[in-house]
Amino acid sequence: MDGLRYEVRPVGRVASPLTDLADAPRQGDEGAPEAWLVFEPEMALAVQDLVVAEQVIILTWLDRAQRDVLITHPRNDHSRPAVGVFSTRSPDRPNPIGLHRTQIVAIDGLRVRVSGLEAIDGTPVLDIKPVLDPVGER
Amino acid sequence: MDGLRYEVRPVGRVASPLTDLADAPRQGDEGAPEAWLVFEPEMALAVQDLVVAEQVIILTWLDRAQRDVLITHPRNDHSRPAVGVFSTRSPDRPNPIGLHRTQIVAIDGLRVRVSGLEAIDGTPVLDIKPVLDPVGER
Repeated sequence: MDGLRYEVRPVGRVASPLTDLADAPRQGDEGAPEAWLVFEPEMALAVQDLVVAEQVIILTWLDRAQRDVLITHPRNDHSRPAVGVFSTRSPDRPNPIGLHRTQIVAIDGLRVRVSGLEAIDGTPVLDIKPVLDPVGER
Repeated sequence: MDGLRYEVRPVGRVASPLTDLADAPRQGDEGAPEAWLVFEPEMALAVQDLVVAEQVIILTWLDRAQRDVLITHPRNDHSRPAVGVFSTRSPDRPNPIGLHRTQIVAIDGLRVRVSGLEAIDGTPVLDIKPVLDPVGER
């Protein structure tokens, strides 16, 4: 590495009935429950224009992941050959940033409820971005 | 904030003919050029299974962004009302992580060439992930 480091600061946390990694689905569309994103009070202005039904991408920091893993068995299936982590969605990777496409289903001030989210309770939230519309509708 | 911080470590850099922010398109499908991702040597195992033609998502650290911006005018158009940054794709946001959907067009060892990338030359690369196929094809 070239030695540069950058610091990410959680803007909120996931509040979810998923509390155990072993129970978490591997992807959000594999039976993950709805969850709340609970934003920090100083994020009020950044959050204020989110709207129900919007498709969004959530970035999380997967704080239970192992950062020194470079190859892994896809979906933890040891009958499949190990492959480089950049060819997988494994949480174990050098920068364990979770990427979750989901939909806003409710908003209550600093709390934003989203559809199928496979991140467990307490996972730090780094960012939320709109899904981009086609060029011309932006 | 709750005070927790996490450290991201670049796994590579963007090498691009785009050297000036003023020339960068706002999104990758708005005329952005091909670019190389130049990975660090210690990432060789993580990179080894990437393949040409694969659709991938690249995460970058937008190191020129302003992190204290909470509201912004969409597409820097001051005739449009300012909105919370979480409703925009502005690089200026608390954690300036760039999200780029692109396609691998060539691979040369630790150098991976991708289609339309709006990040400027030198931008730190944090991660590369495959675009997920529908459930059942994973």
